[in-house]
Formats: sequence, structure tokens, C-alpha cells
Amino acid sequence: MFWYRNLIKLSTPIKSKTPITKNLLQASLSHFSTANQPPASAQAQPSGLGPTKPHDKPRVVVLGSGWAGCRLMKGLDPKLYDIVCVSPRNHMVFTPLLASTCVGTLEFRSVAEPIARIQPSISSAPGSYFFLANSTAVDTENHEVHCETVTDGTDTLDPWKFKISYDKLVIASGAQASTFGIHGVKEHAIFLREVHHAQEIRRKLLLNLMLSDVPGLPEEEKRRLLHCVVVGGGPTGVEFSGELSDFIRRDVHERTLIAGFPNSAWKLEDLLEILLANEILSSFDDRLRRYAIKHLTKSGVRLVRGIVKDVKPENLVLTDGSEVPYGLLVWSTGVGPSPFVNSLGLPKSPGGRIGVDEWLRVPTVQDVFSIGDCSGFLESTGKPVLPALAQVAERQGKYLAKLLNKICKDGGGHANGAKDMNLGDPFEYKHLGSMATVGRFKALVDLRQSKEAKGISLAGFVSWFIWRSAYLTRVVSWRNRFYVAINWLTTFVFGRDISRI
Amino acid sequence: MFWYRNLIKLSTPIKSKTPITKNLLQASLSHFSTANQPPASAQAQPSGLGPTKPHDKPRVVVLGSGWAGCRLMKGLDPKLYDIVCVSPRNHMVFTPLLASTCVGTLEFRSVAEPIARIQPSISSAPGSYFFLANSTAVDTENHEVHCETVTDGTDTLDPWKFKISYDKLVIASGAQASTFGIHGVKEHAIFLREVHHAQEIRRKLLLNLMLSDVPGLPEEEKRRLLHCVVVGGGPTGVEFSGELSDFIRRDVHERTLIAGFPNSAWKLEDLLEILLANEILSSFDDRLRRYAIKHLTKSGVRLVRGIVKDVKPENLVLTDGSEVPYGLLVWSTGVGPSPFVNSLGLPKSPGGRIGVDEWLRVPTVQDVFSIGDCSGFLESTGKPVLPALAQVAERQGKYLAKLLNKICKDGGGHANGAKDMNLGDPFEYKHLGSMATVGRFKALVDLRQSKEAKGISLAGFVSWFIWRSAYLTRVVSWRNRFYVAINWLTTFVFGRDISRI
Repeated sequence: MFWYRNLIKLSTPIKSKTPITKNLLQASLSHFSTANQPPASAQAQPSGLGPTKPHDKPRVVVLGSGWAGCRLMKGLDPKLYDIVCVSPRNHMVFTPLLASTCVGTLEFRSVAEPIARIQPSISSAPGSYFFLANSTAVDTENHEVHCETVTDGTDTLDPWKFKISYDKLVIASGAQASTFGIHGVKEHAIFLREVHHAQEIRRKLLLNLMLSDVPGLPEEEKRRLLHCVVVGGGPTGVEFSGELSDFIRRDVHERTLIAGFPNSAWKLEDLLEILLANEILSSFDDRLRRYAIKHLTKSGVRLVRGIVKDVKPENLVLTDGSEVPYGLLVWSTGVGPSPFVNSLGLPKSPGGRIGVDEWLRVPTVQDVFSIGDCSGFLESTGKPVLPALAQVAERQGKYLAKLLNKICKDGGGHANGAKDMNLGDPFEYKHLGSMATVGRFKALVDLRQSKEAKGISLAGFVSWFIWRSAYLTRVVSWRNRFYVAINWLTTFVFGRDISRI
Repeated sequence: MFWYRNLIKLSTPIKSKTPITKNLLQASLSHFSTANQPPASAQAQPSGLGPTKPHDKPRVVVLGSGWAGCRLMKGLDPKLYDIVCVSPRNHMVFTPLLASTCVGTLEFRSVAEPIARIQPSISSAPGSYFFLANSTAVDTENHEVHCETVTDGTDTLDPWKFKISYDKLVIASGAQASTFGIHGVKEHAIFLREVHHAQEIRRKLLLNLMLSDVPGLPEEEKRRLLHCVVVGGGPTGVEFSGELSDFIRRDVHERTLIAGFPNSAWKLEDLLEILLANEILSSFDDRLRRYAIKHLTKSGVRLVRGIVKDVKPENLVLTDGSEVPYGLLVWSTGVGPSPFVNSLGLPKSPGGRIGVDEWLRVPTVQDVFSIGDCSGFLESTGKPVLPALAQVAERQGKYLAKLLNKICKDGGGHANGAKDMNLGDPFEYKHLGSMATVGRFKALVDLRQSKEAKGISLAGFVSWFIWRSAYLTRVVSWRNRFYVAINWLTTFVFGRDISRI
């Protein structure tokens, strides 16, 4: 009720405010460079947060709210820094569980963690902010980020631009799904990287299932509607296929298909297909991969080799000229650099990512760091570019939070304040292993540090149990841990929900 | 795994199928009049379900999946009837709890009940179906309903038409929100009747709150963005306002508003407004209404008298010429007949609803019944048109299910089979009372049968407790009861979720 008490105070004339509230307000407002300008000019020229003063807390600006950015913000000490996050979404997506939400095993909200729950100071400390915006450019000379706000969903506001000065900048804006320049992918395929993608997949899947039941639809069209194609054989594609097979076998009632395919010898394999350009689950060892192939095939997932040439509204065209009709197309072929990262005039690592040194700094400029899928070690470091995995991003976020806290404690928090500082140990990545579920009660766990190394690799029920437990303990908040457990329980007891809302 | 076993069987050549499956298939398919037609002609001319044969089970066609239709389907005996439901949504919305979902007190899925969970035979019995479609016309001469399928969400299919023959038809397609012909309501206001309305309100509310925090927005524009206007003072409008006030006071952090309104004496009353054309909660007694007004005002909801003349994208124009800027506009001024009901050539009750007799039959034609918000007693019955309430619809559905079961048992299930049958007791409505929550831990309960009658009326914490318990026991499935309880618990412990997904 603190806030309400504050409101009551605010509702009395401004002069009677208590000193504490006043200080809070002033501290908060001193950053708004346009606070006293008239509204017209505020829109005419970009406004924002001006440079911090030497006696202010230094400001860390974080671009992005994925694994890397959120783990960083969680670890930053709000007593040392003001934290400003710029991202087009106000939550982190717990990506390893996203595939489960498409078919209703988990609720969408259970895999979305609001940033304010990860780092509470972002919504309470004066000088710390979350801005719903995209970053458009970085002016490293002037220590400024240029941003443009996101206004999708309102028809009365055009996006507007603003600038934020930083003392330390962390670029953690992530990568984007690769389309390899194939025509039609963006228009017709659905990626599986955000909650709204999972929502779209769910809505489309249920719509297709229901429409296939309505009389008057030619059989060929029914076949097409019910044909789900997943392009790409990585963990996301495999997990989604496993979940989908399980959903169709257990929760969609038999009648849909019996009525839908009266005259044909119908098989589940006609429904689910993973289209592979190369090996399935290529990061896992051969034994686990054979297990996955066997289990997926048994679950009715057809594994097909093929390379997509063109995506049309109703079918895929492969390089061998054959056409694959689809009702739902999920595209999960890995990630590449985003246009924002491409546009930055910073050194690049192999693969076009932002190049960083051993301390995750961009070495050519002052006070700019980069972590997560958008960054990679420069060739000069002699280290390989790390894979685009949640565990890499998370470990980098954790490391950089510690490093930034140390820099501030050593007096280098402000802009250009850490020029010749000893940064201590560089970032070292140790791979903890890979996990992927391949359907009900079955998963792969590969605890070796690399494909060549020795170690434990498991497949089956025990793996599945490890997989669930591991994720459950890593979901960030207690609220979401609780919800994930409850979701799994109710799915087990009542089955998945099939209402299309 | 029954279905999977079936699939395995289906994957072998069709002749080797077991007799049981074969019979199931034949029974199911004999209804598809176009099952053997080539695809082209199936699309060219409407296909569908032909008339039932004398030795088949008679078919009840239910138009709509609201309180009335779903309660009816729940009560119908699937051993007596084949049940076919035609509706643009595959679930029932538990409307009394819908307002709570807008601010995240409850999850959207907790208030949506799939029809297949209400009446399992609809997805398993051969001859029973759910069709995702709108009904466009009723041919009472030929006992046929004309339908058109809903294909929003797929860009590769145009809607197509089909016909369904009925033995008994129940029109339970509901009403639509009244706009009183005011220009701009449909374009700019959000109703609160479906789950997607609640989702839209939530997304818009969170967007406006976040945008108001971004630098560069003039203060006047911030004021507008944060101004939520609810038009209409019925239970829905009041409950939504109570929830919204609670959400803003407890879950939206103080900083949004302090930073957003640096130079003004800001009050919660500037944020929330209910615009009333006449009395608030007019169906409740004066004492309860005074309590509601007092409590809402205390919670920061401003109650304003005014009649809307025009709705523009950024403001309302009232009949007195004044303009009310808004960032979110919720329209909840009651309901009126839908275009479908208006188009039917059936007798009408006062208010333009489908006219029914004491047994909820449309008296001028054979085998047509109507229940819920779309129907009303004919003037000739001497009974008043019942209010558009969930409890009326539910009671009518329950009554009609019993009546139809009785008709079938007495041998009148098929078309024109119940012409001179004694239908037994007519439908009697007994009002059980009204309930509305007015914010955290506070509700009104009015257990009198009418405004003039004597009885119990309560306001406060006890009422709130009764309100919650009453709804919890009336949510249809155990799964949703469990989820509603869990949602309430986590909201109490962790607060509401603010991620905008």
C-alpha cells in the first residue's frame, strides 16, 4: 500500500509533500532532460535521459531482455548502478519450455517472466527504467543509444524516437531466426522464439483441426490442413514434434481423424513431418540420436531429408522440385545476426556477430559490452564463437554482472572511468551438457563437454525426469516454478486444454 | 491409447478393419451426404448432414456455445440424441469471471471451458459433431440450418457454406453488445464478452502503462493514455473497474505514475472513470448501491454522468458537447438482438428477441426452440421477457435438456414427431439473486427475488466470500475449479502478472 499512500500525498497540493517523496521525485526527474520543456518541442526533437553527473550513480543500459540481458540485470547491484533496460518486450521467455506451450502442456504465462520480477529495482528505483522500445543505433563517441518506441497495439500513437546516455552499455539484443533468404518464409512460416509465436501456432493448429471436421472440405484439402511440417532438426524442432505427436495421440479426439479421412488408409505419419537439411540433433552423440530417431518414428513423426527452395502459402517447394503441402509450417533452422547488429559499426566475430574480447568488451570502443546470441569472440582472442544456447547467454550475463559490479566498486563505473583497469579473470565457458525431450516421458541428456569428450549420456525415462527437474529448478521465479509444476500436474491428470481462445 | 490403436488398424488396408470400427465409421459417414462426391462438386454446392433416418438416433442441432447452449448440451442424453453444435468458438466463456482476467487475477484459460469437456459425446460419439461455423439462416420448412464456417486465422481457405438437417433445433446464439448506433463504438471501444476481448484489454492496458513511461511523450498525451473509461454501470462495468483499480493500486508499480506526472497533482481519480447514462447497478437495492458508490469512489474510481454522442479514436464526445480523452475504452452498456436473430422470419418478443411460449418453443413452427439472451416470452404468454443473465440462460438450458430427453423417450424425437405431445410443466423462472464484486475483498449480494421483494441483501467481506465460493462451485469442470482456486491463491501471494505476452 506504499504506492497508494504516496498517491494520497500526491493528491494534496504539491508543496505539502514529504521530503522523502520530493527527493525521490527530484532524483527521478533530474534524468529527464526534457522535463521542463513544453510538450510540442518534446515531440519535435528526440528527448531522453541525459548523461549522469559525477555524483550520481552510474547508469548501465541493457539492450534486450533475453537470457543474457535478464541474467545480467538480476546480478547487477542496484545500489551501485541505475539500470535501464530497452527491449520490445517486458518479459523474458523461458525458451526451453516454449515448445510445450504450443499444445497446452504449459500455459503461456508460465514461461514468461516479467523483468520487474527478475530485477525489482527496474520499476521502483529512481533512475532505473524499463523502456518498451527498439534500439536503432549506438553513438559510441557520445556514449548514447538511439531508440524508437514500440506502439503496435495502439492506433492513436506513432512511434517516437529518444536517446539514452550510458556509462556502460550492454548489447544483448539477441539474434534472429535464419531464413537463408528463402522466399516466403517470413510470410507463411511461424518461428518458435517468442510467446506470440507459440500462441499463433496453437491457434492455427486448433483451427486446422476443427476446420478439417466441417463437412464440405475436399479430402485433399483436409490432408493438407492436418499436415504439420517442422523445418529443422535441432532441439526446438524435435521437442515441438514430440509434444505435437503426444497432443494429437492423447488429447485430440480420435473422431477428427476418422471422420476426416474416411476413404483412405490414414497414418499418423501423414500428419507430422520433420524436414531435415542435415542430421537430426547434430550436437548429440550417435547413440542418443539413434534413440531419438527411433522414438520419434515410433510416435508417428516422419523424418524426411530435403532442402527448401521456396515457401508458398499452401506448400513448400524443395530443391529436388517436389512439393510438400502443409497446414502448419514451423521454421526452426537456427539463428543469424539481426539487422540492428549488422548496422553497428563495431568489429565482428566470425559469423557476423559483435566481436568481443575475453572480458566480453567490444575492444575498439569504451564501455560497450556484448553478450548472448548477438556476440562472439573475436578471432584475435583465439577462442571459438560459442553456440547460440541459453546456457551460454546465462553464464555470460552472470559473469558480466559480477565484472560490472567490480568495476563500479573499483571506481570505474562512470563513462570512460575503466580505461586501464585490471578486469581480473576473463570469461571461461564450460559446457554443462545438452538436453532435449523427444515426447512423453522420454528425453536425451548428454553431459559431455563436447562431442569428442567422455562423459555421461542418457536416454529414456530417467533422462526425462532429469530434464523436467533441471528446468523446474531453473525457471526464474517461485511463482513460475509453482505454475509449471501445476501445469504439468493438470496436464497429467486432466489432459491438455483444447479451447481456442 | 484407444485412438492410437485405431490408427494402427487404419494404417493396414481398409478391409482388415474390425467390425466395430467399421460400424463406427459407417454410422458416422452415412450422415455426410457428400461423402462420395468428388471434391470439386463438394465445394461447388453446399454439403453437410442430411436428414436422419427413422431407425437412426434423432439429431438435436444447437446454435451457440454460451451458458444456455452449453447447459443444454450437458443435460442432453447422448444415448437418446446425436448432438451437433454450431458455434464460432469451441468453448464456453465463464462470463462472471471474465472481468478478472483483464488484469491477470485469473488466467484466460481458467474461464474458458471446451465444449468437449462439457459434453464429451460431442467429440466421440459417431453422429455428434462440433462445427466451427456461424449459422446464417434457418429453413423451418425443410428442417435445415444453413451455416458458414469461420476461417479467420488461415489465409489459405475461404469460408464455405454447408447445411445441417435437424430433428430438433435449439437457437441459443445469444445477443450482441448494444452500441445504440453511436458512431465509432465498434472501431474504438472494446466490449467485454469474449476471452479475446479480455486479452485485447489486457494488452492495451499494459502497452499504455509502459508507453507512458517512455521519455518524449507530452504530459497531456500521458494523461490520455492512462485514462481508462468504462461506459455503463452494470455489474460487468463495475467489476472491471474494481479489478482495474485494485491492479493499479497494488501491482502496477508506483514509479509509472510518479514519473509520468512530474508536474501535476496527480490523483487515481484521473485514471479511472465510469461513465453512466443512468443509475449504477440499477438491479440492486438502494443500500447496496450506496455501498458500491462509496467503495468505488474510495478506490479511486470517478463516477460521472453523461451520454455518449460520438466515439473518436482519442476521445469521447458527450451530448453536452464536452470531450473525454481516453487511452482505453471499455463498452458495457447491455445487449440487443444480433443481426442473425433479426434476420429470422420467426415471431418476436418485446425487444426483438425470438418469441417463445411457456415451453421455450417457437410456436409458429415445428421442432424449433430458443433459449438464452436471444429469446424472450411472447406477449401472448403474459410473462415478462427475462433479463439477459447467465442464471436465466443456465436455468433454461437445464429445463430444455430435460424436456427434449422426455420428448425422445416418449417417441417424439424425430422431426415433426412431437406435434400434439403433452410437454408437462412449463418453464418457471425463479430469480436466485444478484451478485457483483466491487474490488478487493468486497462484493454485493442481493438474494431478493425482485427489487420490491423482501430478503437478504449483503455488502462487504462476507458477500465477497460468498461471491467467490458461489462462482468457484459453479465453474463447470474440476480442472477449471482447480485453476481458478490456484489463480486466486497465487494472485494473493505473488500479486498479478504484468508480462505483456
